[in-house]
Amino acid sequence: MLAKMAKGAAAKDVKTGGRPPRDSLVTKTEVVLPSDANNLGTVFGGRVMEWIDIAAAVSAGRHCRTTVVTASMDDLHFLAPIKKGMVVILQAQVNYAGRTSVEVGVEVLSEDLLTGERTRCCHAYLTFVALDARGKPTPAPPLLPETAEERRRFREAEERRQFRLQRRDRFR
Amino acid sequence: MLAKMAKGAAAKDVKTGGRPPRDSLVTKTEVVLPSDANNLGTVFGGRVMEWIDIAAAVSAGRHCRTTVVTASMDDLHFLAPIKKGMVVILQAQVNYAGRTSVEVGVEVLSEDLLTGERTRCCHAYLTFVALDARGKPTPAPPLLPETAEERRRFREAEERRQFRLQRRDRFR
Amino acid sequence: MLAKMAKGAAAKDVKTGGRPPRDSLVTKTEVVLPSDANNLGTVFGGRVMEWIDIAAAVSAGRHCRTTVVTASMDDLHFLAPIKKGMVVILQAQVNYAGRTSVEVGVEVLSEDLLTGERTRCCHAYLTFVALDARGKPTPAPPLLPETAEERRRFREAEERRQFRLQRRDRFR
Amino acid sequence: MLAKMAKGAAAKDVKTGGRPPRDSLVTKTEVVLPSDANNLGTVFGGRVMEWIDIAAAVSAGRHCRTTVVTASMDDLHFLAPIKKGMVVILQAQVNYAGRTSVEVGVEVLSEDLLTGERTRCCHAYLTFVALDARGKPTPAPPLLPETAEERRRFREAEERRQFRLQRRDRFR
Amino acid sequence: MLAKMAKGAAAKDVKTGGRPPRDSLVTKTEVVLPSDANNLGTVFGGRVMEWIDIAAAVSAGRHCRTTVVTASMDDLHFLAPIKKGMVVILQAQVNYAGRTSVEVGVEVLSEDLLTGERTRCCHAYLTFVALDARGKPTPAPPLLPETAEERRRFREAEERRQFRLQRRDRFR
Amino acid sequence: MLAKMAKGAAAKDVKTGGRPPRDSLVTKTEVVLPSDANNLGTVFGGRVMEWIDIAAAVSAGRHCRTTVVTASMDDLHFLAPIKKGMVVILQAQVNYAGRTSVEVGVEVLSEDLLTGERTRCCHAYLTFVALDARGKPTPAPPLLPETAEERRRFREAEERRQFRLQRRDRFR
Repeated sequence: MLAKMAKGAAAKDVKTGGRPPRDSLVTKTEVVLPSDANNLGTVFGGRVMEWIDIAAAVSAGRHCRTTVVTASMDDLHFLAPIKKGMVVILQAQVNYAGRTSVEVGVEVLSEDLLTGERTRCCHAYLTFVALDARGKPTPAPPLLPETAEERRRFREAEERRQFRLQRRDRFR
Repeated sequence: MLAKMAKGAAAKDVKTGGRPPRDSLVTKTEVVLPSDANNLGTVFGGRVMEWIDIAAAVSAGRHCRTTVVTASMDDLHFLAPIKKGMVVILQAQVNYAGRTSVEVGVEVLSEDLLTGERTRCCHAYLTFVALDARGKPTPAPPLLPETAEERRRFREAEERRQFRLQRRDRFR
Repeated sequence: MLAKMAKGAAAKDVKTGGRPPRDSLVTKTEVVLPSDANNLGTVFGGRVMEWIDIAAAVSAGRHCRTTVVTASMDDLHFLAPIKKGMVVILQAQVNYAGRTSVEVGVEVLSEDLLTGERTRCCHAYLTFVALDARGKPTPAPPLLPETAEERRRFREAEERRQFRLQRRDRFR
Repeated sequence: MLAKMAKGAAAKDVKTGGRPPRDSLVTKTEVVLPSDANNLGTVFGGRVMEWIDIAAAVSAGRHCRTTVVTASMDDLHFLAPIKKGMVVILQAQVNYAGRTSVEVGVEVLSEDLLTGERTRCCHAYLTFVALDARGKPTPAPPLLPETAEERRRFREAEERRQFRLQRRDRFR
Repeated sequence: MLAKMAKGAAAKDVKTGGRPPRDSLVTKTEVVLPSDANNLGTVFGGRVMEWIDIAAAVSAGRHCRTTVVTASMDDLHFLAPIKKGMVVILQAQVNYAGRTSVEVGVEVLSEDLLTGERTRCCHAYLTFVALDARGKPTPAPPLLPETAEERRRFREAEERRQFRLQRRDRFR
Repeated sequence: MLAKMAKGAAAKDVKTGGRPPRDSLVTKTEVVLPSDANNLGTVFGGRVMEWIDIAAAVSAGRHCRTTVVTASMDDLHFLAPIKKGMVVILQAQVNYAGRTSVEVGVEVLSEDLLTGERTRCCHAYLTFVALDARGKPTPAPPLLPETAEERRRFREAEERRQFRLQRRDRFR
């Protein structure tokens, strides 16, 4: 498996005029330990948010190849509780790249190790700003969607951006 | 100071037909320790989200006096970075109560201990669902806004609710 | 709520000949998570001490507006156990200021979210030393007690100081 | 991406006479935060071991679909230091299944987000025992290697097993 | 080394009319990692208190062979700062046993690994209450001091007990 | 107890042509808290590995009096599960010193505080490399075994070294 991982990395080294979304795919696997669970025996929201933030930051970093910082998180919905002892699978990928920022989508599934059953538990959209060495915003590479699904995500991210700006102005 | 804290608590014990927002005010103070900071020397996003989730859950719990679980977080915006060694002050309060859920608003300020300067760093809105002893949704007490500011927050939370449902349908 | 918080901060910026105790009031709210609890299902002593130390250090820092380090903790008594799932409310305030050190008093209450009942669980007195930029002790601003209660605390802290020196000499 | 993840899970639900190694592939992505690093600015060994243990336990659990416990870890070699701020990619997969135990191989790569460069840092072999609901060893499903590479790993794991038993007898 | 450790344990199994202090000696070694240090690069007070509480609780548990809970901590003095990267050596031992409680003394040394130099950094006295299976106070075995030093510690612990009761009444 | 600890330290300060194994003996005591335990109520493997790594690193550092980094861990066998609430006693000691590296052996016992019963749970061998101030390998002092037991351990460590090199070449 190593060979493939190493090759993937090499491909990303080339300074291109942009990157496809698959270059920024991140998979993170966790187990809900007792220290991650609240008194109902389910993972507490804040811990999942921490995992989401890490997975999304790596994804944004892989696209930008710069330091990135979290600018916002929105549309985080918990759809199903995740119990102690379950496996949590996070997948993050860049949906959209603006001038100096990117939107990352994160899906969170739970897996019951005893049955193999997987349940969609949570999804979220985060934006990150690309920073140069002095901590100033710096251009992010263009995103080059390749599939119909990726193009749909790109368009929806643009819509969300409008929503986000509206809401920021409305509720600041 | 104890006397006042104990009295406040006693007041909340009365089972009324609803509660004012001030009953659910929560203040949480943290210091950004090296283990909370990323490699830029600023607190990483996921840690702040964890603190926000805890402060907001206590606020929702104080209003509902039931177990509560995080349903969603939206409109989390990082407005300014928070550096290692700074104090973080979180304030959470219930803005709106629906049938079985509440919206909590959280403000996050940083304080530079050496100068006393405070900066608004982050704000977020979270929704929680009230659960009974078997883990099923249960009615939340009505919220009784008392001031003009509280009534404004109540109305805006209703607007956000519409936004949230629209977006959930749009991007699910 | 933000406005009030920001104003409070502004007031502390003025370099006066001293500060009232209310300037150093710190409130810290925590929830006892499973990872904070021992095998009896109650929070373990060392975790509460950690929270006390953080709340007290912020309080001392707000009074001194310098770096501060813990010099001693004494008279920490656990009066009632705090169960998993309970809310913990810590309040810290400067009681006394000596030449380069201050005494901070910390009260710890537990709150049962389901009933709203609050119980006094623990109290402690800590001393901190004010340090300049090179890590050397530096003068702390005088404390200006305003109320009868604050004057009583000031006098008692002076007494405790005598006790502390006696004991240090006796048991070193 | 979700669709594929959900399908993979469904496939694993079928109770077959055995499973191919790819069913137990686990990817775990971490970032080396300051709290994971020692005073040289590199991740400390014990933290990597913790990550390895979690990734390997999920892999063993996916193969066995029972509770599993770590029985041994051997041949953990650190080949290159991993610096603060780097991404760590762990991949775990079952190499061999005995009667009630399995061997999992774990590869650890570091990735420099700024350059995309990946370096092989560490590898390890762990064995896990499958347990039934009363905590007694229970049969593990056979492993069905599909590729030449998987068959080579299977044979080498058998060799390691001999080494392991020899060493256990020699140095117990 | 194992043989000696196992034998020591066997000796403690005998239900005697009391135990010597050496039966409750606990040594705990830690390294100050970046996540344990404040922004001055020295271990923060609350972390040391947590380590002290754990070492002392094991010591009290070894004497009582019951569940024990922390009742108080007093006379904790930080004599010298402990820097990041230093080794911390804690030694705890029961000084005194009352009817249902014991006093444990804890010494904290730092060790600079590069020079081998050790410095006394901190000492503290804690009291623990012995609890039966229902969580009620239960008799603690008598302490049988064997050496002149142990007898001196016993007498001083009795004095501290008087101080402690006086102060509790005075400052409650 | 302090006197003896301080004297031991002084002895190690002398720059000799080597050190006996007893100079590097490290004892580390932990309690298995709920946050250390998996969903079976037993400590999870990765946490024990972290404790082993810290104890062994201090032992290697005491022998070398330089910075040391983990190079490998092998022959870690879990012989018995360790339950929540049990005390864990780790003892580490240098077995063998090569030119720039040392082998440390670690024994892990569990102790049931209620009965005093101790059980051998785990043992492991780790190698560390001595580094100079620029992070380059630097000579480690010779090890001077004093007892028959220490000489046996020295010889066995040499054997393990051969095994280790063979396996590294065989399975790299």
